[in-house]
Amino acid sequence: MLKLKPMAIDTYRENVAYLSRDCPLYRAEKFQGLAKIEVSKNGRSILAVLNIIDDSSLLGADELGLSESGFRQLGLPAGEVVKVAQAAPPASREAVRAKVLGQSLSAADFEAIIRDIAANRYSKMEIAAFLIASASFLTTDEVLSMTRAMAAVGSRLTWPDRLVVDKHCIGGVPGNRTSMIVVPIVAAHGLTIPKTSSRSITSPAGTADTMEVLARVEIDIDEMRDIVGRAHGCIVWGGHVNLAPADDILISVERPLGIDTREQLVASILSKKLSAGSTHLVIDIPMGPTAKVRSHTDAIRLRKLFEFVGDQLGLTVRVEITDGTQPVGNGVGPVLEARDVMRVLERDPLAPGDLRSRALLLAGHILEFDPNLRGGKGHERAKELLDSGAAARQMAEIIEAQGPPPASPILGTLKQDVIADADGTVAAIDCYRIARLARLAGAPTDKGAGIDLFKKVGDPVQKGEPLYRIHAAHPTDFRFAGEMVAEDPGYHLTPSR
Amino acid sequence: MLKLKPMAIDTYRENVAYLSRDCPLYRAEKFQGLAKIEVSKNGRSILAVLNIIDDSSLLGADELGLSESGFRQLGLPAGEVVKVAQAAPPASREAVRAKVLGQSLSAADFEAIIRDIAANRYSKMEIAAFLIASASFLTTDEVLSMTRAMAAVGSRLTWPDRLVVDKHCIGGVPGNRTSMIVVPIVAAHGLTIPKTSSRSITSPAGTADTMEVLARVEIDIDEMRDIVGRAHGCIVWGGHVNLAPADDILISVERPLGIDTREQLVASILSKKLSAGSTHLVIDIPMGPTAKVRSHTDAIRLRKLFEFVGDQLGLTVRVEITDGTQPVGNGVGPVLEARDVMRVLERDPLAPGDLRSRALLLAGHILEFDPNLRGGKGHERAKELLDSGAAARQMAEIIEAQGPPPASPILGTLKQDVIADADGTVAAIDCYRIARLARLAGAPTDKGAGIDLFKKVGDPVQKGEPLYRIHAAHPTDFRFAGEMVAEDPGYHLTPSR
Repeated sequence: MLKLKPMAIDTYRENVAYLSRDCPLYRAEKFQGLAKIEVSKNGRSILAVLNIIDDSSLLGADELGLSESGFRQLGLPAGEVVKVAQAAPPASREAVRAKVLGQSLSAADFEAIIRDIAANRYSKMEIAAFLIASASFLTTDEVLSMTRAMAAVGSRLTWPDRLVVDKHCIGGVPGNRTSMIVVPIVAAHGLTIPKTSSRSITSPAGTADTMEVLARVEIDIDEMRDIVGRAHGCIVWGGHVNLAPADDILISVERPLGIDTREQLVASILSKKLSAGSTHLVIDIPMGPTAKVRSHTDAIRLRKLFEFVGDQLGLTVRVEITDGTQPVGNGVGPVLEARDVMRVLERDPLAPGDLRSRALLLAGHILEFDPNLRGGKGHERAKELLDSGAAARQMAEIIEAQGPPPASPILGTLKQDVIADADGTVAAIDCYRIARLARLAGAPTDKGAGIDLFKKVGDPVQKGEPLYRIHAAHPTDFRFAGEMVAEDPGYHLTPSR
Repeated sequence: MLKLKPMAIDTYRENVAYLSRDCPLYRAEKFQGLAKIEVSKNGRSILAVLNIIDDSSLLGADELGLSESGFRQLGLPAGEVVKVAQAAPPASREAVRAKVLGQSLSAADFEAIIRDIAANRYSKMEIAAFLIASASFLTTDEVLSMTRAMAAVGSRLTWPDRLVVDKHCIGGVPGNRTSMIVVPIVAAHGLTIPKTSSRSITSPAGTADTMEVLARVEIDIDEMRDIVGRAHGCIVWGGHVNLAPADDILISVERPLGIDTREQLVASILSKKLSAGSTHLVIDIPMGPTAKVRSHTDAIRLRKLFEFVGDQLGLTVRVEITDGTQPVGNGVGPVLEARDVMRVLERDPLAPGDLRSRALLLAGHILEFDPNLRGGKGHERAKELLDSGAAARQMAEIIEAQGPPPASPILGTLKQDVIADADGTVAAIDCYRIARLARLAGAPTDKGAGIDLFKKVGDPVQKGEPLYRIHAAHPTDFRFAGEMVAEDPGYHLTPSR
């Protein structure tokens, strides 16, 4: 029996327990080499990876420390007396073992694995084992089982409407903030579109980060239902609503490992949509040499997998393969992207045309889900709603319903223009480098940091003309970004003859 | 620039860096979701996983904390000003990615991966990714490349002798402490046998743990060379000599994940032997329903892989498949095993016959490597050296050369006899459960804890007779072991008719 002590250490999504090496009761060395221990009291229990403390001022010999996430999950007060035991590996680990050996898993196997992952019973390395074993080989039936299992854990939204539409972009193209234009168009038409979006993990902004420049996005389920009831749509942060929480844990391992399989992507997106109660869905797959999907064959394969799994789940899925050769719009980073979105909605002459037309294309496809709309009239209707100002009014209504943002971020005041070093034409823009540059400049932590593009592919430029401007709020970030630009600005120019 | 602060936290083999959430220079959130940061100063650098501290009494905003292993590896004094940056993934991660996608890797790929792992540049989840991708598919050429790469990192021993023999058991059978009998026999014959052994990770004792009951085992390379020069052999802890250090890191991930592939096992064992400068090797594969290798087919497959890789490496490898149906000897746990070993060497009437004959079998095979010994005479010569007392004298010499042990452990004084509940015959003993029981009782942390077996398979027993005795040093351990026995004592009796 040890006294529980919260340790103010954020170990992200992995629970870590701390034990003194002098702990007389359990003598820590016994646990050495073990992956995990179980901390329990009156039926509550969590698993945690064990670290040993060699300093009695940090932790007493009669104490058990828990990292912030572990302490929260256990949900007991500090000082409570808890029991510590060697943790048996979760039963579902046997299924992971079978997968490592190349076997196909049943729906029940996936349910057990995903349930244990969502309950933080897997260490990061166990999750990595599951992901890699799955990356090597997963049948389409297994993708389906995994998607269902992921949707079954966490919250499940239901809506009174028979038709609940949604859109999702697989990402990888900076500035591609179409959701914030599509949602008000579709909602203005009267369809229900309860959009939950992610915050950025490795990109310079997620839709939730950009929407947070304009409105509050941390909204709970009841409030969300209320907002959608009033405004037909919303744009909120999905993380706050706890949809398919296992997915977020899987992503926290996939990202640093750089694993991005088709199967995992489809399971991740469709499980979230299923949990969100969507019935009809448009998926945007941008394709380009520096985007996530780089060849037409890959794009088609991904589309077919979305269609297969969607069909089996009873979702109507339409997949659109779009141009992912360069950033969409001009701004990259929350404040700049929000500016572009509002310019499109408000029909500002400075509105980026590519963002507008991309949003109209996707909104048009969603509107076609409306059985009352004449076939082929979706795009026209979308244009009408945008050009009449109906979409802008709808956005104002959504923003009002969600409430004001927690802060009013301004554009980063540290500025550097990146200049063309010769006359020529922009031949290519590296999406990956531009995203990384905006992130180094501070986005999305600093909402005002980012990149403002002045030239897009095909534009003529003259020597000395600015290609883009870097905005940052902090000197260190500004210097990091400057160093990266010096190495490679991410623009490729074809010289004038 | 941050001030380096050692944190007294043992995170095992993974470097962890701690940063305050208030750190003004780098603002910790920027790193969130990142796998690792790089901490550097004047060309020295380490990679570390990042944890965030929310308590200024633990870590100041201008400090960078490092876990014990990270602080040791960086090798700079506390208070030194260090630089922190987002870490680029090690270049060899591309090869891991290729392996995940099912490709075969080159020798250069394995060299790069193993070098980065040995330098602690991989997080545990990255190591898991490599292991699982390899577990799914590895050609014999890849096993060979991996073995060579593992042997190339760390210390490499060389010996003046043309013939340097060694033995290795793949483990899984409690009490199978033959090395401590084989080494003195072979050394008494005059062959060079510089044995490095492991400490236990999940078993109740490694050979190094048991030898440490009798002599010092933490011996450095120069001293080891000196001991072998005087006594022809030694039994020291391999961990102290830094042979194939990448292997220890891989094992620290394999164990908690429960991965034990043939390929990894062969690479692990043969890389260590190559680093140790062995030329001729006997491998013991115990086979039985509760051992590591459970079928004859599996044993043969493993044998063939040992032979193939050994041949390619220029090692003469002889593989012996032995009886692994029950524990060998009577004692399980360091003190009890050391007692059995000394009884065999000293020809005590209480010496366990199975341990003696197993040791003679293996020693005989090793002696046959001596070109001057007439073919088929190895076993006879081994028996002669044991029965004449020459092996016992050699052991005394080795013990003297290695020096006295750090402590003189005694048998655990808390005792419980486990009693037969009916008349019958011992039909089976579960190796896995007996090992786990001895470990729960405190072995190898308490060298005097363990299990003393009174009955082996085939022995008749009467109701009320003790089957074995549990020894423990601490009441908690004693209680844990008692609880496990109550659940299943690990003995199966066939009732008398």
